[in-house]
Amino acid sequence: MTLQSDVAAVRLAVRRELTDLEAARGPSALDGAAGDPVVVVAVSGGADSLALLAATVFETRRSAWKVVGATVDHGLQDGSAEQAQKVLAQMRAIGVDETVGIRVQVEGAGQGPEAAARQARYAVLDQVAEKFSADAVFLGHTLDDQAETVLLGLTRGSGGRSIAGMRPGFDRYRRPLLGIRRSQTEAACRHEELDFWSDPHNTDPRYLRSRVRMDVLPVLERELGPGVAETLARTAESLRVDMEALDAMADNWLRQPDALAVDGLSQLPAALRRRVLRSAAVASGAIDAELFHGHVLALEELVTAWRGQRWIDLPGHLRGLRRDGVVIFERAPSLDS
Amino acid sequence: MTLQSDVAAVRLAVRRELTDLEAARGPSALDGAAGDPVVVVAVSGGADSLALLAATVFETRRSAWKVVGATVDHGLQDGSAEQAQKVLAQMRAIGVDETVGIRVQVEGAGQGPEAAARQARYAVLDQVAEKFSADAVFLGHTLDDQAETVLLGLTRGSGGRSIAGMRPGFDRYRRPLLGIRRSQTEAACRHEELDFWSDPHNTDPRYLRSRVRMDVLPVLERELGPGVAETLARTAESLRVDMEALDAMADNWLRQPDALAVDGLSQLPAALRRRVLRSAAVASGAIDAELFHGHVLALEELVTAWRGQRWIDLPGHLRGLRRDGVVIFERAPSLDS
Repeated sequence: MTLQSDVAAVRLAVRRELTDLEAARGPSALDGAAGDPVVVVAVSGGADSLALLAATVFETRRSAWKVVGATVDHGLQDGSAEQAQKVLAQMRAIGVDETVGIRVQVEGAGQGPEAAARQARYAVLDQVAEKFSADAVFLGHTLDDQAETVLLGLTRGSGGRSIAGMRPGFDRYRRPLLGIRRSQTEAACRHEELDFWSDPHNTDPRYLRSRVRMDVLPVLERELGPGVAETLARTAESLRVDMEALDAMADNWLRQPDALAVDGLSQLPAALRRRVLRSAAVASGAIDAELFHGHVLALEELVTAWRGQRWIDLPGHLRGLRRDGVVIFERAPSLDS
Repeated sequence: MTLQSDVAAVRLAVRRELTDLEAARGPSALDGAAGDPVVVVAVSGGADSLALLAATVFETRRSAWKVVGATVDHGLQDGSAEQAQKVLAQMRAIGVDETVGIRVQVEGAGQGPEAAARQARYAVLDQVAEKFSADAVFLGHTLDDQAETVLLGLTRGSGGRSIAGMRPGFDRYRRPLLGIRRSQTEAACRHEELDFWSDPHNTDPRYLRSRVRMDVLPVLERELGPGVAETLARTAESLRVDMEALDAMADNWLRQPDALAVDGLSQLPAALRRRVLRSAAVASGAIDAELFHGHVLALEELVTAWRGQRWIDLPGHLRGLRRDGVVIFERAPSLDS
C-alpha cells in the first residue's frame, strides 16, 4: 500500500525539522553524550497539532529522540477540561513517551483574551521545555495560519514587520508545518483515524481571524485565483528575510557610541534611520505598541528637516529632541510640577 | 462660501508637489532664468485626472508655471476618438496653457493589452515632456489605485517589491494624488461640474484589477473594517522605503571588484546575498521576469550549502556555477552543438 500523500507531506516536514535540530546539536547529537534529545509537541487536539504529533512520533520511532506531548487547558470554553482529558488519551494512543496536561488561569490584564491565552500558553510550554531539557517545542501552525497572519498584518499597516508573518522558529520553538495546508493535516488525521477537535472559536465571526479565515481568504481565492494562501505565505517568508536584515543592521548601528549623532543618521538610508530612531525611543522608555509611524517620521525630521523643532512628544511620557547635533530622549516634565 | 473639502484636499496635494518641484529647481525656480517651469498633466478624462488637472491649473494660476494637458487615445475602445475630443475640450475649458491629444497604435507583441497600452502611453508622454521641456509629468493615480496594486502584488508572491506599490515619483513622473481617495476626486469633479468619464474597463470582471476593485477590496473593508485601503497604501509606502534601502545596498555591493566571491557573499545577510545574486544573474543575461525565487535560492546554495553542485540552469540559456571560490555565470552550451 502506498503512503497517503498528506501523511507523507506532514512526515517529511517533521523529518526536515528533526534533521536540522540534529545538525545543530553537532556530531554527538544522537550518541547520548549530551543526554537523549527531547522534543515537546504542543497539542490542542485540532487537526494541525494531532497530525504534527503523529508524524513526530513516527519519525522518531527508531531514534534516541524522546517525544513529550503537552496540552494546555485555558479553561475559556465549556467542556475544556473534558477536551484536555481526551487529548491526553489521544497522545498516549499515538505513542508519545510522556504526556503533560496543564490547566492555566488566563488573566487578560490590559490585553484581549486571545493575547492573554497565548501568553499563558507560552509560559506553560516554557516550563515544560525546561523540565524535560527539551531541544525544541513544536507548534502546529500551518500555511493557512501564516496566510491569515499576513492578511491580518496588512490591516494593521505597520509595514513589513506586520506582514512578515510568523517565524518558522524562535528561541526553542519550531513550526514544522508552515508549508503544509490545514486541509492536508485534516486529511492526514482522517487517514490515521485521529478524531480531531474543531475549535468553535475558529469559525466564530466575532473574531477577526475567523472572518479572515471564513470570508476573506475564500473571496481572494475565488477572485484572484487559487494558490493565494501559498502566495501570501511565500511573500511572508521573503519579507521576513528582508526585515531581519534591516533590523539587524539597525541594531548594529545602535551599538556604536555616536549612534544618534545627526551627522551619521543623516547618511543612513531612511529605512535604517527610522528603525534606529524607533529602537532608540523604545529603549528610552517609549511605549512600543503606541509608537506610531507618525512619531517616527517626526523624530526623523529632527535629522532630515531640522528647523529648530523644540521636541517631539512620544507615548510613555517621553520627548525626543535634538541637542548639540545629537538626537536625545528625555522624560517629559510631570504634569504636577 | 467655504471651499469644498475634497476640492481642497486635491489642491493641497498638488500644491505640495509643486512646492517640492520648485525647491528642486533651486532659487532661480520662478524667476524665468531657466525658462518658465512646465508641468504636463496626463488626462484620461476620468475623475482622477480631471480633478488633478483642475487643481494644477488652480494652484499655478498666479505663478510662472505653464500647464500642458495631454491625452492619449489608445484606440482600444469604440468611441475612443470622440472621448479624446471631449477631453481636449474639457482641458481647454479648465484653462490649461496647451493641450496635446495623441492617437497611438497599441501593439501587444509578447505582452497583454494593458501592458502594451501603458508602454505606448509612457512613450507618448515622454515625447510631450521633451517637446515642452517639462519639469514634471503628473499622473492621476489615487490611494485606491495604490491599494489595488498592493493586493495584486500580494497575489504574485514575489516578495516586498511586488507589494511596495507604485512610487510617488520616478524620473520626471509624479503622482500627487497617491494619498487621495478615488471617491474624493469624484466628489471634487462633481463640485466643479466636471463631467468625468467612467472607463468600462474599470468594472469589467475579465480584468484582474477590476475584480480587486469591485469584489476584493469591498469584502476586505466589510470584514476587516473600514480604512483597509489607507492601511494598504501605508504598508506600501513603508515597504517601498525598505526595499529601496536593500536594493541600493545590493547595488553598492555589486560595484566591488570581488562582489561575487563566496567568502564575501557568505558574510552578507540573506536579504542582500539573494539580491546580489539575482542582479548579477540578470546583468549576465538571465531573463528577469522568468527568474524565480527558487532559482535565486539554488544560486544561494552555491554559497551557503556548497556540496559540489555542477551548475544551476537559469532562464535565458544561462548557467550559474561556483568556480575557484567565485560565483560565475556562463552561457549554456547550445543544443545544436
